[in-house]
Amino acid sequence: MHDYSQLRVGVAGATGYAGQELLRRLARHPTARLAVAMASGQTAPDRPPAALARLVTGEIAPFDPDRLAAETDAVLLALPDEASARVAPRLARAGVRVFDLSGAFRLRDDRLRTRWYPEVPALPDGVAYGLPERYRDEVRRARLVACPGCYPTAALLALQPLASAGLLAGEVVIDAKSGVSGAGKTPTARTHFSECHGNVSAYGVFGHRHAPEIEQELGLPVTFVPHLVPLDRGILETIYARLAPGTTAREVREVYEAAYASAPFVRLTGDTLPEIKHVAYTNFCDIGWRVDEPAGRLIIVACLDNLVKGAAGQAIQNLNVAFGIDECAGLL
Amino acid sequence: MHDYSQLRVGVAGATGYAGQELLRRLARHPTARLAVAMASGQTAPDRPPAALARLVTGEIAPFDPDRLAAETDAVLLALPDEASARVAPRLARAGVRVFDLSGAFRLRDDRLRTRWYPEVPALPDGVAYGLPERYRDEVRRARLVACPGCYPTAALLALQPLASAGLLAGEVVIDAKSGVSGAGKTPTARTHFSECHGNVSAYGVFGHRHAPEIEQELGLPVTFVPHLVPLDRGILETIYARLAPGTTAREVREVYEAAYASAPFVRLTGDTLPEIKHVAYTNFCDIGWRVDEPAGRLIIVACLDNLVKGAAGQAIQNLNVAFGIDECAGLL
Amino acid sequence: MHDYSQLRVGVAGATGYAGQELLRRLARHPTARLAVAMASGQTAPDRPPAALARLVTGEIAPFDPDRLAAETDAVLLALPDEASARVAPRLARAGVRVFDLSGAFRLRDDRLRTRWYPEVPALPDGVAYGLPERYRDEVRRARLVACPGCYPTAALLALQPLASAGLLAGEVVIDAKSGVSGAGKTPTARTHFSECHGNVSAYGVFGHRHAPEIEQELGLPVTFVPHLVPLDRGILETIYARLAPGTTAREVREVYEAAYASAPFVRLTGDTLPEIKHVAYTNFCDIGWRVDEPAGRLIIVACLDNLVKGAAGQAIQNLNVAFGIDECAGLL
Amino acid sequence: MHDYSQLRVGVAGATGYAGQELLRRLARHPTARLAVAMASGQTAPDRPPAALARLVTGEIAPFDPDRLAAETDAVLLALPDEASARVAPRLARAGVRVFDLSGAFRLRDDRLRTRWYPEVPALPDGVAYGLPERYRDEVRRARLVACPGCYPTAALLALQPLASAGLLAGEVVIDAKSGVSGAGKTPTARTHFSECHGNVSAYGVFGHRHAPEIEQELGLPVTFVPHLVPLDRGILETIYARLAPGTTAREVREVYEAAYASAPFVRLTGDTLPEIKHVAYTNFCDIGWRVDEPAGRLIIVACLDNLVKGAAGQAIQNLNVAFGIDECAGLL
Repeated sequence: MHDYSQLRVGVAGATGYAGQELLRRLARHPTARLAVAMASGQTAPDRPPAALARLVTGEIAPFDPDRLAAETDAVLLALPDEASARVAPRLARAGVRVFDLSGAFRLRDDRLRTRWYPEVPALPDGVAYGLPERYRDEVRRARLVACPGCYPTAALLALQPLASAGLLAGEVVIDAKSGVSGAGKTPTARTHFSECHGNVSAYGVFGHRHAPEIEQELGLPVTFVPHLVPLDRGILETIYARLAPGTTAREVREVYEAAYASAPFVRLTGDTLPEIKHVAYTNFCDIGWRVDEPAGRLIIVACLDNLVKGAAGQAIQNLNVAFGIDECAGLL
Repeated sequence: MHDYSQLRVGVAGATGYAGQELLRRLARHPTARLAVAMASGQTAPDRPPAALARLVTGEIAPFDPDRLAAETDAVLLALPDEASARVAPRLARAGVRVFDLSGAFRLRDDRLRTRWYPEVPALPDGVAYGLPERYRDEVRRARLVACPGCYPTAALLALQPLASAGLLAGEVVIDAKSGVSGAGKTPTARTHFSECHGNVSAYGVFGHRHAPEIEQELGLPVTFVPHLVPLDRGILETIYARLAPGTTAREVREVYEAAYASAPFVRLTGDTLPEIKHVAYTNFCDIGWRVDEPAGRLIIVACLDNLVKGAAGQAIQNLNVAFGIDECAGLL
Repeated sequence: MHDYSQLRVGVAGATGYAGQELLRRLARHPTARLAVAMASGQTAPDRPPAALARLVTGEIAPFDPDRLAAETDAVLLALPDEASARVAPRLARAGVRVFDLSGAFRLRDDRLRTRWYPEVPALPDGVAYGLPERYRDEVRRARLVACPGCYPTAALLALQPLASAGLLAGEVVIDAKSGVSGAGKTPTARTHFSECHGNVSAYGVFGHRHAPEIEQELGLPVTFVPHLVPLDRGILETIYARLAPGTTAREVREVYEAAYASAPFVRLTGDTLPEIKHVAYTNFCDIGWRVDEPAGRLIIVACLDNLVKGAAGQAIQNLNVAFGIDECAGLL
Repeated sequence: MHDYSQLRVGVAGATGYAGQELLRRLARHPTARLAVAMASGQTAPDRPPAALARLVTGEIAPFDPDRLAAETDAVLLALPDEASARVAPRLARAGVRVFDLSGAFRLRDDRLRTRWYPEVPALPDGVAYGLPERYRDEVRRARLVACPGCYPTAALLALQPLASAGLLAGEVVIDAKSGVSGAGKTPTARTHFSECHGNVSAYGVFGHRHAPEIEQELGLPVTFVPHLVPLDRGILETIYARLAPGTTAREVREVYEAAYASAPFVRLTGDTLPEIKHVAYTNFCDIGWRVDEPAGRLIIVACLDNLVKGAAGQAIQNLNVAFGIDECAGLL
C-alpha cells in the first residue's frame, strides 16, 4: 500500500496558465508533493514565474518523459493535445497514473475523435472521462484520466442529471461566455488586450470540438456557441432547454439535489442565478435555474473558473479521488 | 415650410448617458441646432459635463415642459419611463415633434403595455415605433416616435426581414450581452465597478419587458435573456433560430440584402461574425450569421452601441427621417 | 495560558469587501475559529454572500459589541472610522484584543489625528501601529492594533528601512495606483463601472489623510497622490526618492535584504519591477527598485493586494503575531 | 496655388491602430481626401478592417513610396521608426509634405538621436517638431513634420509654458499611465489580455527614449516612468514639479491661460483634475493642476487619447496647420 503522504506528483507544462495553477494548488496540498515541474520550448524559464515566488520553490526542468516516469507516482499533463497524445499512453504504460488536461483522450467514438484529434487513432486501455461527480468509480480505476475542460464541465454538471432522469426533450442550446485565460498564454491577435477590451465576440459557431464531447456524454443534440468576454478568469454558460411534457419545477430541483448531495464542489443556487465572480479562483461549479412550467422552458446558468474546476482543480480533484485522498485536499 | 437649417431641438434628460450622447451628436449636426438642454433633479448640474467642454456650450436648464413647447420644433426625451409618459403626449399636442427614448409608448397592446408601463393606460394618437429601417413612413408622419432601445433594435434588425419572409419556424432564443452603460448612470450595487469587473451575470430571465416588445414586432415567441458583461458600451445578441423547412443559406442572404440595400446603418457581415468593438461609438448595427442547412439551424449575431443605435443615434436618425433631413446627418 | 486551538475570533463589518476577505481567510486558518460574524445596517444580510457559500457557514448577526466582548478572545474590526473609534477602546478595556482596520487610531499626534479623525480626541493606552514587519514587539503587547491600510503599508515597507538607514535625502514623491475595491462596497458615482472603465483619475491631491500617516512613520516629507485605475484588487506605488550623497546601489540592496531577511510576506524583486498581478489575492508585498547612482535617483515600485496585505491579511498577520501563532497561518 | 478641396493625402501603415485612426479621421475631413492607403507585410489585408466598413472605401495597397510620391500632396506615415527613417526624407525631397508619426526625426542632438534612432545619423533639412501649439510657424514651413507621440505631447503641453515663463525650479517627475493601445497592434506577452487585465506595471525606468525628447523641448531634467494600465485608449500623466521661489498659484493660471488662449485642443480644467475618459476618442489634451504655495509644490495632471492627440489627430492637426486649413478640420 502506498504512503500517500509521500505521493510524488509531476507537472508537465508547468509555465502555462493551467500549469501555474497546478503548481499553486499542489503547494498547499497536504499529501501530494510536487516532485518535478517541467516545461518545454526554447523560451521556457528555469524558475517559477514571479507570482509564485516563495510559494513554489525549485526549478522548472526541461520536459523529459523518462524522468517523469522514473520520479513520480502521478503526472498532471497541461500540454497541447498533440504532446499529450504522444506522451500520456507511454507514461500510463510505465505505471504512472496520468491526469491529462488536454482534449486528446476525451472522445470515445473513433470517427469523431480522429476528426478533432487525429493524433489519437485509437483510445488506449484504462481511460476514464474525468468528471469525478459522475465517473468517480472509473476515475478510481483508471490509468489515464482525461479531464474535461471548462465548457464541457459546466455543461455536463448542469445537464447530465436532468438528461439521465429523462426530464429533457429536444435540442439544447448552450451559450457560453469565457474569460480570455481560456485561450491560453500564447499571445495572438485574438487575445491582444486592445482587441478584447470593450469587446465581445462569438467564435467556433457550428464547429467547436467541445460540442461533440458534450453530446457524447449527454446523449442529446447540442448547439454550442462560445464567446470571448473581457475578463480574465471564469466562464458562464446560459443553457436553454425544453422540459419533457409534464415536468415540474419541483422535479428539476429534486433531481439536482439528489445528484449533488455529496458533491463538495457543486453549489446549487436555485433561482438565484450564479455569477462568474462567485466562483473565480475556486474549484466550485455554481448552478442556478429557472423553470417556466406552462411553456415547458428551462433556463440554466452554470459557471466555474476555467483554470480551476475547468482545468487544474479538476485534475487535482481527480487525483484525490484516484488515490483515495480527501476529495477537497488542496482545493479549498 | 420649415427652414430646417433653423430646426430647433430640445433635449430633456441631458445629463444621463443617452442625454450626453444626444448633445455630442447634435453638436456636430449640420442642420439641427440644440435650442435648449434640460435636466431635472436636485443634483443636476448647470453646465455640460467635463467631457463635453468646448463641444457643447450653454447651460443645462431645469426641466420645464412649457419652455420646451415654446422654444423648440422637436424634442428628444431621454427620461425615465414615468416622466416620458407624463410629458410626451402634452408636448406632442402642443405641436412639438417628440422623439422618446423611453419604453413608455412602445407596446401597442393595452394589456401588455399597462403591465410594464402602468403609467400609460392608453396610447395617444400619432405614435410610431421608431425603428426607421422598418417604419420609415410612419416615422415621417408621427407626432410621437417611440424609439426602441438597444435590445429590441438589434433583435428586430436581425430577425424581422427573415420573419416577414416566412423563413423562420418555431421559437427564437436571444442571448444578449450588454455593457454596463445600458443600466444607466445611477450608481447601484449591480453596477459598482468591483461587482462588474471580472464578472458576467444573467438577469431578467423570463421577466424582461423587452421580450414582449420583440414579440409584438416579430410575431414569434421569444426567449430573451440579457447578461451584464464587463465593458462600458455596446451589446451583442446571439440569436438561435430554426429555419422553415427547405430554407437555404442563399435565401437567408438574399432576404437580408434586399431588406437593407438602402439602410445606411445596417452592415451585413455575412459569415464573418460581428463584434462589439466594430460598432462601439457608431450608429451601425452589424449583423452576421451562419446557416446549418441540413439541420435547419440558423445562428445570427447582431451588435450595436447601446447609447448610439440603441438610444441617442436612433433618436436622431428618426428625427432626420421625420424632418426629411439626410438620414445620416450628425451620425457619421 | 490560552489554548489557541480554541482562539475565538469575532469579525465586525463582515459583509464589506475587507470583511468578506477576513471570513475567507479565517475559514482556512488552522487555529483561529470564527466565533461570530456581525454586520450593521438595515440592508445587512443574515447569511454570508454567495461567493462564500460552503466556505463560511453560520449567520451574519447584527452588530453587538457586548456579544463580541462576551464571546471572543480577539476581534477584527472592518468598520467605518467613526464606528471603530466608538467601539474599539471599549472592547479593548473588556479584555478582548482588538485588531482595527480603520484609520481611527493610526496617528499618534493629537493635532494631526483630530484633524482627520475628530472622533478620537485622545489615543487610548496600549495602541500599536500594526505593521508587523516593523512593530512586531509592540503588536505582541498591544491591546489595540491599528492596522495600516494599503497605501501606508506599501509606502512604509518600501521606504522605512532606507529612511532608518539614513540613505534618503529630501522629499519623497509617492504616486499610487489603486484598484476600485479600495474605495469600498458602497456604490458611488466615482465607483460606477461606466465611470471607472477606460479611465484613470487622480484624487486627494495635497489632501489625503494617508500622507501624514506615512510622514509620521517615515520622518520625511511626502507628496502622495493616489489614482483610481480600472481594476478590482491591488495597488501599485511608484516612489521617487533622492539618495543621500554617496549612497550606492549595493547599499540599498543590502539594507533591504537585512530588513526583510525573516519577513515571510515581503518579496524583494530587485531590478525586476513587481506588478499588481503577482500579488493579487495574496498577502505579499513585492518591492523592486532601480538606482541611478550618478544622479542619486532612486525609484521604488511596491505593490500589494489592498484587501489582503492592505486590510484583512494584515489584520490576521497581526493577530498571528499577537497570539504567538505561526505568522503565516491562514495566509498562504 | 493649391486647391485644397483637392488635397490628396496618402496614409502609410494604414492597418495599425494609429493608421486606422488616420483613415477614420480623414473620412470625415472636409477638404483632405484619402488618395491612397498602404500597408506592408505579408499579413496586410487588402481591405480596411471591419470596424471601418462603409466609412472607408477602397483598397489597402501594398506599401510603395514611388506611388505615394506620384499620387499625393501630403503623406501621413504611421510606420516603425526604421521604415520612416528610410522613406520620409525621400518623400520630402520628392516634394510631398510628410507628417511622420514615428520617433525617428524628433531628437535634434545627433548624439542623442543616434543612440535611440541609429538609422537617422543626420537630420534632413526642413524638419519641424510637430507640436502645433508651440511650433505653428515651423510646421507651416516644414517639409517634414516629426509629430510627437502621446507621452511628450502631454508632458510638453503641461510644462512648456511654465518652463518658458521661468516658473519651474529643479527637476520634474513625470509618472505616466498609458492604455495598452499605445503599445501597438502586434501581440506580445506584455500586451496579452490576461497579463494586462487586473494589472499595472512600470516599464522603461531610467531608460525610456521619450525622456530625452521631453528634456530637449523643456530644457529641464526629467524623471519619466511610464506604466501600463488596463484600459485601451488614453494616457494620464501626473507631474510633480517645484515652483521657482515666490511663484503664486495665480501666476501659474495666468501663464496657462495666455499660452492656450487660442489653442482649440487644449482644455484647461484648473483645479478640477482631468480624467482619461473625458478625452478618449477626442483630439483634446486636458490639463488641470494644484498649487501648494507655501511649500512651492506644483502637481499637474494632463491627459489625452494616445491614438488621437498622441498620434493620428496630432498629425492631421499639423496637416491642417501646414496647409492653412481650419485647424479643427476632421478633428471635432
